[in-house]
Amino acid sequence: MAGSRPGTIPSTNRAKRIAVRAGVDTPGHRDLPEEVPVALSFGGTTQAVMMATPSDLEDFGIGFALSEAIVHSAADVIELEIVEADQGFDVQMRLADQVQTAFAARRRKMAGPVGCGLCGIESIDEALRALPARSAVELELTPGDVREAVRALSMQQKLRAETGAVHAAGFYRPDEGMLCVREDVGRHNALDKLIGAMARNGQNSAEGAIVITSRVSVDMVQKAVIAGTGVLIAVSAPTALAVRTAEAAGLTLVAIARGADFEVFTRPNRISKGVESDVA
Amino acid sequence: MAGSRPGTIPSTNRAKRIAVRAGVDTPGHRDLPEEVPVALSFGGTTQAVMMATPSDLEDFGIGFALSEAIVHSAADVIELEIVEADQGFDVQMRLADQVQTAFAARRRKMAGPVGCGLCGIESIDEALRALPARSAVELELTPGDVREAVRALSMQQKLRAETGAVHAAGFYRPDEGMLCVREDVGRHNALDKLIGAMARNGQNSAEGAIVITSRVSVDMVQKAVIAGTGVLIAVSAPTALAVRTAEAAGLTLVAIARGADFEVFTRPNRISKGVESDVA
Repeated sequence: MAGSRPGTIPSTNRAKRIAVRAGVDTPGHRDLPEEVPVALSFGGTTQAVMMATPSDLEDFGIGFALSEAIVHSAADVIELEIVEADQGFDVQMRLADQVQTAFAARRRKMAGPVGCGLCGIESIDEALRALPARSAVELELTPGDVREAVRALSMQQKLRAETGAVHAAGFYRPDEGMLCVREDVGRHNALDKLIGAMARNGQNSAEGAIVITSRVSVDMVQKAVIAGTGVLIAVSAPTALAVRTAEAAGLTLVAIARGADFEVFTRPNRISKGVESDVA
Repeated sequence: MAGSRPGTIPSTNRAKRIAVRAGVDTPGHRDLPEEVPVALSFGGTTQAVMMATPSDLEDFGIGFALSEAIVHSAADVIELEIVEADQGFDVQMRLADQVQTAFAARRRKMAGPVGCGLCGIESIDEALRALPARSAVELELTPGDVREAVRALSMQQKLRAETGAVHAAGFYRPDEGMLCVREDVGRHNALDKLIGAMARNGQNSAEGAIVITSRVSVDMVQKAVIAGTGVLIAVSAPTALAVRTAEAAGLTLVAIARGADFEVFTRPNRISKGVESDVA
């Protein structure tokens, strides 16, 4: 497939299956989300390979570079090319000269060949990296905003509607609603794609909330804080470490958000109190 | 905390939170799953750092070593020590001499310092590694077995019952029921813990099915195939690549298993047909 145009790997694929319902077999098909290896390369060197849904790969590349603090703005990536590789894609990014130099120096400091479980992380200290403080971010959401953000995200999950079992991340502004949604089989990838899309569109993440369909592990908090938002809303539950990390960074963490119900774990000052007329 | 006894980091932790139900605030607490960095080290060198729930770390170490094909049997790990690190744990394993030599040679082949998104993976080729064939595994489950396997796993998820939002993996034998369950905030970790526990208990994974609460990405199929089972049952949906990988390896993939309903994506010969007396 080398040389063929990017985008020739679809985001969904139809699989044969036998549906068994109360013991009765029915052969048929089901659309499933696709998953391919996506390499993220900077200045000709692969930094990571992720299994990801092959959509919005430009957003993924920029978002990964931002989340991993390889760049500080989308403009630091001066060229981005998506090259179809053997059974996946290589997102090849060229960095501005001084950014590339700083990144190369950081790579040289890494000790020897290592694998990792968190992308680009190779020590316990780095897994718990220091985060910028977001205590000063001014944003206020009503309970109705939280409900609407979760509802709007759910409505805009196109890939999930086709296939099920896909994660999504969205950016919600109280004044403008859900502005951007990205999906992926992986929850980290969905969030990185969103962060990249927001940066490319010039959205100011401090002016809205990031909403995710998944549970909240510490790395989801890290990505949200680095992206600059003051509020992270999740459909599922957080880990205890994610709560401590959100508290320390001054991030408002709302989780277990379903219908009109949700729980606020940190910095509740950004969620207005009281019964509202728009709450059912 | 250096030098303190392992196990002093609990698997759950209580967090303060404000529950908002239909617009009414109620302050209180919720138990959340803990998540800490766990380093996996072989012969004095850290191979990976995972964010994991600090339980069953011996199983995790052995299971990771097996899943990553660093060892081929639990006996290849001749010493395992869990050392409390700064804010997490280091699972330090000593390998049998010839296994350590082979592993060190494999590490030397790795090109330069790299990060990765899949543990220990640093190229697209390696992400889609060749798997042993499991076509010859003889095992037959009834639809009632599938239903019982999922029900029994759900019943034995102790950590999830306390906290929610935790994954589990279990080993089910049609003749003996659910023999072993392991939990973790991460779905890969839960499966690695199960694989380690099975190896340490001398269970023959070809004689039963592995059951997981999560969706099925390709790496879950890879782990199940390497562990030696012929049947993987998942509560959620697979990716298209996971289905192709299971088919190629001769693994029976059952997914979207809820109540008496499920779907068989590959190798349906291991699931008996027809309405059974025990199906509601």
